[in-house]
Amino acid sequence: MEQLFFDDGMAGSLLRQHELEDLKAQLEAVDRMLDEKDGPGSEFLGWLDWPTQLETTELKRIHKVAEHLQGLADVLVVIGIGGSYLGARAAIEMLTPAFGNSKGMEIQYAGHHLNGDYLKELLAYLENKQVAVNVISKSGTTTEPAIAFRLIKEMMERKYGKSGAKERVVVTTDSARGALKNLADKEGYETFVIPDDIGGRYSVLTPVGLLPIAAAGIDIEAMMRGAREAQALYLDQPILDNACYRYAAIRNILHRKGKTTEVLATFDPAFQYLGEWWKQLFGESEGKDHMGIFPASLQMTTDLHSMGQYVQDGQRILFETMVLVADNGQELLIPDTGEDDDGLGYLAGKPVSLVNHKAMEGTAMAHMDGGVPVLKITIPEKSAYWTGHLFYFFMKACAVSGYLLGVNPFNQPGVEAYKANMFALLGKPGSETLKEELERR
Amino acid sequence: MEQLFFDDGMAGSLLRQHELEDLKAQLEAVDRMLDEKDGPGSEFLGWLDWPTQLETTELKRIHKVAEHLQGLADVLVVIGIGGSYLGARAAIEMLTPAFGNSKGMEIQYAGHHLNGDYLKELLAYLENKQVAVNVISKSGTTTEPAIAFRLIKEMMERKYGKSGAKERVVVTTDSARGALKNLADKEGYETFVIPDDIGGRYSVLTPVGLLPIAAAGIDIEAMMRGAREAQALYLDQPILDNACYRYAAIRNILHRKGKTTEVLATFDPAFQYLGEWWKQLFGESEGKDHMGIFPASLQMTTDLHSMGQYVQDGQRILFETMVLVADNGQELLIPDTGEDDDGLGYLAGKPVSLVNHKAMEGTAMAHMDGGVPVLKITIPEKSAYWTGHLFYFFMKACAVSGYLLGVNPFNQPGVEAYKANMFALLGKPGSETLKEELERR
Repeated sequence: MEQLFFDDGMAGSLLRQHELEDLKAQLEAVDRMLDEKDGPGSEFLGWLDWPTQLETTELKRIHKVAEHLQGLADVLVVIGIGGSYLGARAAIEMLTPAFGNSKGMEIQYAGHHLNGDYLKELLAYLENKQVAVNVISKSGTTTEPAIAFRLIKEMMERKYGKSGAKERVVVTTDSARGALKNLADKEGYETFVIPDDIGGRYSVLTPVGLLPIAAAGIDIEAMMRGAREAQALYLDQPILDNACYRYAAIRNILHRKGKTTEVLATFDPAFQYLGEWWKQLFGESEGKDHMGIFPASLQMTTDLHSMGQYVQDGQRILFETMVLVADNGQELLIPDTGEDDDGLGYLAGKPVSLVNHKAMEGTAMAHMDGGVPVLKITIPEKSAYWTGHLFYFFMKACAVSGYLLGVNPFNQPGVEAYKANMFALLGKPGSETLKEELERR
Repeated sequence: MEQLFFDDGMAGSLLRQHELEDLKAQLEAVDRMLDEKDGPGSEFLGWLDWPTQLETTELKRIHKVAEHLQGLADVLVVIGIGGSYLGARAAIEMLTPAFGNSKGMEIQYAGHHLNGDYLKELLAYLENKQVAVNVISKSGTTTEPAIAFRLIKEMMERKYGKSGAKERVVVTTDSARGALKNLADKEGYETFVIPDDIGGRYSVLTPVGLLPIAAAGIDIEAMMRGAREAQALYLDQPILDNACYRYAAIRNILHRKGKTTEVLATFDPAFQYLGEWWKQLFGESEGKDHMGIFPASLQMTTDLHSMGQYVQDGQRILFETMVLVADNGQELLIPDTGEDDDGLGYLAGKPVSLVNHKAMEGTAMAHMDGGVPVLKITIPEKSAYWTGHLFYFFMKACAVSGYLLGVNPFNQPGVEAYKANMFALLGKPGSETLKEELERR
């Protein structure tokens, strides 16, 4: 199998094949909205053609800067939050070893929350390391990364001097305006651009994701090749054979029948942050106007021993999407101890990956039998190429799904509510009235 | 504030105070079921009195064995899954530094899934370390830990010889029977007992959790003292003033009104696995008979930039429980750069923890205004003592909540379904008929 394979054969009795046919006109309407760029939020459709738009020279510059950082430092601190954090982390965790990254730089994260203990411990940890920084923010005023960058910039300038720090800081930000762009110009930092027409959660294949991914030693050329081939594939295929459209349609059908919640299940701990990235992508794209499927993620088989009971027999509000890898890659064999103390004798000499695979098959059947529709998305192997393909697949499927639901999948108006409160409570100039009002509550 | 503080003042208009009064008789009935041990699953109520039942000599032996392991090895590999994994990991992540555990041993985990890449990379990582192992399994035949223990036992015996390995392996298992008990007796491993009347998800305060927690350098005496005082407090308080009963009652009230899903939100990345432990506790206890609140967890402020949009304005099926720490502990200050490039000038010189706290307050108000009832559970500080208290609080609240819902909160019949399929697909002797049936599907 040399393609991404979307399998709805275990969706169970809640899905009848004629329902896909019945949705065809709606899917075609969505297809036209994407094609003609006239749907809600279409000013943020830059990601759709991005894999073929990204210039080879720019990709080479990312690669070169990553190599420059690798030569200067052991650790790259990636400062970003939300869409400026999750995509890179998803790819890096999927594609580098669990213990010590022998492929490229060690990557640490900052600015992805406001916990001072963590920041303090990170600064102490960096004290005796050679450090480089990639700060990623469209505006430069997002509270979390701005605070982290103040702290880390101070540490870098103390450690390397102003000009030494300059060599080790790379900025990814707006092309023309904003606090971080101004600072980068003033300090002379190497800079990459976040395209205007690509929102945070659709930005993993732009320099936002690609620079940290390259610094971690992952082949970004292969990743973009995978994305380019996905772009072509999901543009050309007949709509009912197109995995993006099928996945989007089926999740909408199941939602219309009362499934409120989708659980994304993976069978490799390295896929944890793919789940986090996916939750932002779908949650932020669809969770608005009091609508949207609630996205949750499960790590198997770990969570079969925690959330497994719920999935099998709790409220029947769930459907499950499994992200699988056909070729597990390793051939670690279960040792033959010559004994059967633990009842595993029948597995001696078999690969661990076989047991994992049979656990997956057994789980899919059990969950389907329990009333949980199961969808399967399988990539041929865990590689940069297929990760690029998978990212593009999910982004396009998400856009289609959001349009089918009748929302703008590219805005996020709800994230302002807590920010306004927080700024007022912190005494930000200009929000005095709200401050008084909140403090009276 | 020197107590755990449960605050339902932001539950919003969905909760009226008379509703708690109206549930009083049901809460008293549940209280009697726990007291008289005559409710469903009451043979697994051992955790209820456990903090005062655990003998000082046994606690001392745990401490002594942990010290012995600390003296012998750098890394302790904890082999376990579900309830034999999540509690220890929750406590260890909460109470040891994010980068390098200067307090005690480095803890790594195995047997918590079936991914061969991870196991292979772990074995390579351990090659040049001094290693000890704590294998935790009631039966010794649970597939994930049994496979990991086969591999790690082989590595240990190659590395240290049979008798050297014996010194470095500690077993936590059944008192009398089972594969692991038999193996421990045969090999002469140091052994701790999992009490018969305490199920996995209620076992964190038994040797299951305490040995790895002690090895990580955490004060288990303080943790048990916290749990003992919680036991006394939640036994004696009038039922409507009792935080366990109030939390349980309110989550049931909200569920009865159509809130299908509870999100546990924490504001410290060290609390991630507290969320995982909590999801098992509540998900496995209540998710049965097609009932139960779906438990999900959020890490703030990280997830305000991903799931925040959904919580603010998606389907109104959510309520949110925040777990907070009154005293953040650190005093990392936001540097004053003398400039205001990033718009943070008004925060210069203030502690990062203040911003985190105001983010929490602003979020709670925004979510409540958006139609998400918000509950707050606040502990005075992040310490072993209050972690012990918090564990006990959640376990008792979970038991009360499950009984209110009308389920047996101590069984997990649904987890057998996938296991039966998996064993059959793997060709386990005795499951030939099921194998044929599954393979025909």
